[in-house]
Amino acid sequence: MGLLSYLKGQSRSYSKLLIVTTLSGGGLVAYSDKPQKTKKKVLVLGSGWAGTSFLKDLDISSYDVQLVSPRNYFAFTPLLPSVTCGSVEARSIVEPVRNILHKTNGQIQFWEAECLKIDAPNRKVFCHSNIQQLAGSNHFSLDYDFLVIAVGSQVNTFDTPGVLEHCHFLKEVEDAQRIRRTVIDCFEKAVLPDLTEEERRINLHFVIVGGGPTGIEFAAELHDFVHEDLVKIYPSVKDLVKISVIQSGDHILNTFDERISSFAEQKFQRDGIEVLTGQRVISISEKFISMKAKSTGNEVSIPHGMVVWSTGVGTRPVIKDFMEQIGQGDRRALATDEWLRVKGGDGVYALGDCSTVDQRKVMEDISSIFEAADADNSGTLTIKEFEAVVGDIITRYPQVELYLKSMHLADVMDLLKDSEGNGKDEVNIEGFKRALSHVDSQLKSLPATAQVAAQQGAYLSRCFNRMDLSKEHPEGPRRFRTGGRHEFLPFRYRHLGSFAPLGGEQAAAELPGDWVSMGHSTQWLWYSVYASKQVSWRTRLLVVGDWSRRFIFGRDSSRI
Amino acid sequence: MGLLSYLKGQSRSYSKLLIVTTLSGGGLVAYSDKPQKTKKKVLVLGSGWAGTSFLKDLDISSYDVQLVSPRNYFAFTPLLPSVTCGSVEARSIVEPVRNILHKTNGQIQFWEAECLKIDAPNRKVFCHSNIQQLAGSNHFSLDYDFLVIAVGSQVNTFDTPGVLEHCHFLKEVEDAQRIRRTVIDCFEKAVLPDLTEEERRINLHFVIVGGGPTGIEFAAELHDFVHEDLVKIYPSVKDLVKISVIQSGDHILNTFDERISSFAEQKFQRDGIEVLTGQRVISISEKFISMKAKSTGNEVSIPHGMVVWSTGVGTRPVIKDFMEQIGQGDRRALATDEWLRVKGGDGVYALGDCSTVDQRKVMEDISSIFEAADADNSGTLTIKEFEAVVGDIITRYPQVELYLKSMHLADVMDLLKDSEGNGKDEVNIEGFKRALSHVDSQLKSLPATAQVAAQQGAYLSRCFNRMDLSKEHPEGPRRFRTGGRHEFLPFRYRHLGSFAPLGGEQAAAELPGDWVSMGHSTQWLWYSVYASKQVSWRTRLLVVGDWSRRFIFGRDSSRI
Repeated sequence: MGLLSYLKGQSRSYSKLLIVTTLSGGGLVAYSDKPQKTKKKVLVLGSGWAGTSFLKDLDISSYDVQLVSPRNYFAFTPLLPSVTCGSVEARSIVEPVRNILHKTNGQIQFWEAECLKIDAPNRKVFCHSNIQQLAGSNHFSLDYDFLVIAVGSQVNTFDTPGVLEHCHFLKEVEDAQRIRRTVIDCFEKAVLPDLTEEERRINLHFVIVGGGPTGIEFAAELHDFVHEDLVKIYPSVKDLVKISVIQSGDHILNTFDERISSFAEQKFQRDGIEVLTGQRVISISEKFISMKAKSTGNEVSIPHGMVVWSTGVGTRPVIKDFMEQIGQGDRRALATDEWLRVKGGDGVYALGDCSTVDQRKVMEDISSIFEAADADNSGTLTIKEFEAVVGDIITRYPQVELYLKSMHLADVMDLLKDSEGNGKDEVNIEGFKRALSHVDSQLKSLPATAQVAAQQGAYLSRCFNRMDLSKEHPEGPRRFRTGGRHEFLPFRYRHLGSFAPLGGEQAAAELPGDWVSMGHSTQWLWYSVYASKQVSWRTRLLVVGDWSRRFIFGRDSSRI
Repeated sequence: MGLLSYLKGQSRSYSKLLIVTTLSGGGLVAYSDKPQKTKKKVLVLGSGWAGTSFLKDLDISSYDVQLVSPRNYFAFTPLLPSVTCGSVEARSIVEPVRNILHKTNGQIQFWEAECLKIDAPNRKVFCHSNIQQLAGSNHFSLDYDFLVIAVGSQVNTFDTPGVLEHCHFLKEVEDAQRIRRTVIDCFEKAVLPDLTEEERRINLHFVIVGGGPTGIEFAAELHDFVHEDLVKIYPSVKDLVKISVIQSGDHILNTFDERISSFAEQKFQRDGIEVLTGQRVISISEKFISMKAKSTGNEVSIPHGMVVWSTGVGTRPVIKDFMEQIGQGDRRALATDEWLRVKGGDGVYALGDCSTVDQRKVMEDISSIFEAADADNSGTLTIKEFEAVVGDIITRYPQVELYLKSMHLADVMDLLKDSEGNGKDEVNIEGFKRALSHVDSQLKSLPATAQVAAQQGAYLSRCFNRMDLSKEHPEGPRRFRTGGRHEFLPFRYRHLGSFAPLGGEQAAAELPGDWVSMGHSTQWLWYSVYASKQVSWRTRLLVVGDWSRRFIFGRDSSRI
């Protein structure tokens, strides 16, 4: 229900955008009848999935928009593992932000710089350009009325010694390019004269820490690269290559359905990729990686040629500092409410990996809900009274719907039935509390994925585009505690499915509605979804071109 | 004449190669009737034009071949200026040497390392791998029977202070990639807030030192990149961009025909590219470039955003060291004879930019020539006697032919005519010396181009392939001093023409036979020649794909 009205709202805002675009394209908006009012300043930090998705749909006729990011491009990060081995070129997955944000009805100003500090009380941010050796200051500050933080995350080392010094990561395009060069280095070094076979073996031992989708996809890509391309040109060392995945949990891909998890493990076993589960990495040096078995406590140290660290997300320093300013110092990520407004930050929004939506619990508001629903103040809720608020409850507390699904209940009314399945006519506050007592167990934080970030960006741009409208005609659910309605519908994540490419032209996918799909056909699904999701026709052509080139000629092993 | 037999010889060796390939493809060479003899070790240094061209055609059934190069790929260097601005991607112009050298009848061993020292007396080279942080030693040595030095050149700073620290170069693929990033940096910095207009102007002042083909092509590429692509996405600074070319000579492209030179100067003037001629750069700092007018001696210092140094070639340290060992310490480049054998280095050959062919002068041998030609020892040469040696003279001393051409003489016999144009029947030694006295003025060192290097590589591989044959049947010209014949024809450079792309889809070309062509059609000729010259079908497709992409979508300005 909430979903339906959300979609309706979306299509409405699209058509509005269309009209604006058409008009301005015809040059008809130069003289507007509306009185000129000062545009509010919207400042966006970050040009990743969240930031660009927010800006793409934002109606900039009502805002003065600035974007600050240390990268002047948007990167299609789900293809980063493909870049590490040259299945796709780095250039094919990037698009200059200025091209993406090219608007017909005005300008979004972009500064290539890093935000070093947010000064929330004065509504100011301090930025720094990383370009040295050119004329002019590298520091500047910007004012804002609304701040949208979408700076993403940084790598999380879990304070493991040696990770920052000796590991590769897979967060940025440069990381992927560096991995590609290092893989070739390992092979070139391994074939040099005067090395012992043991030394060659060590140089060709590739270790991946983290059995999540990124680590697994990289392991699979590397395996394909080695066995489809590199063994042909480095035949003397082809039997010395080893790929190991170290995972702290009991299974790899443990956020996926367990059918996918075991399919991946079996495939890796057939491919000769070693999977070490239940192991925690305790330190990494230039030549060795040390780990501890969680079950036995046994420690072991193995030599490596290269380690890729792909586990967890960490908070950037600028966000940590900001969290301390606004009293979130004890949290692990920037908390927002369901409207993506940063808690304790006036006019500040946060999207994507740097933030987490702090979903309100039903039980925190249970008394208010009961009182608000009890229209006749009788102290009991009738079925009719409950029915009148059920829509608002489900919109405001999405965990209710998840709970119904998990309990295989068709209707919210079933919650009020007793253990024998008999419905009641009325329920008092205690009964109401009892009925909803387990609902909050379904609260889950959203994954740190491109999909969540992009949906949050699109959601927030819609809110910004109808800010004036929603003041007059609030569209959100009832405010149970204070009365009235929320201006906007809260953010609701729609999971569209997730992929795990496993190499050898096979992939696994978890699709909406608990569908699971695995094998070669899923890889083709992956190709078509990723081609269609490209941000521009240019990158789409390039990516498809890269895939074709790889099919015909293999991957390039030049060390550049 | 010499050329014809050279070409005949080439086609013969090709067909031989074809037979070998066909046979070994059929697996028929496993049992050979020939007695097994130890293969001679050929060691090649360098994977550029000269080295790969030598190895491509080398018949490795007779040699044990090793290649050492710090780069595991061959780069199509004439397209480097296109890489600087993204008209062509770096990946599209490189091909792994292992792919190029893949032979059906054996293996060429390749080591990714740099040769640090040549020990000629012991026929050994010492190499060093640049790959740190992996297991095993980085140093190794290799023995050889024949050494082929093709390490190319390094940049020549002419000891100008600040060049190494503050300039970009255009020798390697990495140089071109770095230039591309820096151009974008200059624009990103120039549009930041809080800069004065003067600071923006400085950051967008691009200086090219050197008016040769590389520098001019880069200037033209940069101009196109700025005006076709960057002004659209950095509109606020489009009028602040300035490109300057500093040339010490009086004209740019002064190795080309003067029609091309003035066409280029006029085009640059129309395009607003500043050309400063007759200026010698005396120092470069982070922010300024200082130069001195050759005519007036006036010094001037101008601020810059970026300097690209593209002038002259210098000698690599390993070559300098080797030259001192073999008594060439006072020379500027490694001297070889006309058979590409290093003078004073036994079993050592040198090709490409690192070497120079020391063409023997006619006048050094004039008495021996006269004696050898004077078959009847009469003390005079008859026309008949002269005619008998003319072919050998022209083959051995190619300057004779150049001289005839420069004097518009149709026949060598015309040399013997007196100033009134009357032929003589006989000539004595004094008359013979007088007749040939100006011939050596036509001696010119070969340009440091890909074309020369590739032809030298092909020439030398042919010599290696027919080494046994030529011992029995020498094909070279007569040895005037010692009698007998040279085993091989000397190397003869055939100029196939050279291009100078000038931007805006226009190019200039100097073609064989003093043909000059300029304009849009020449650019299309350039496209087709460069596409056809690609080293593999993969790179050919990629380069043509890049050109098409650029036509449709423009150049990418993402800073990666």
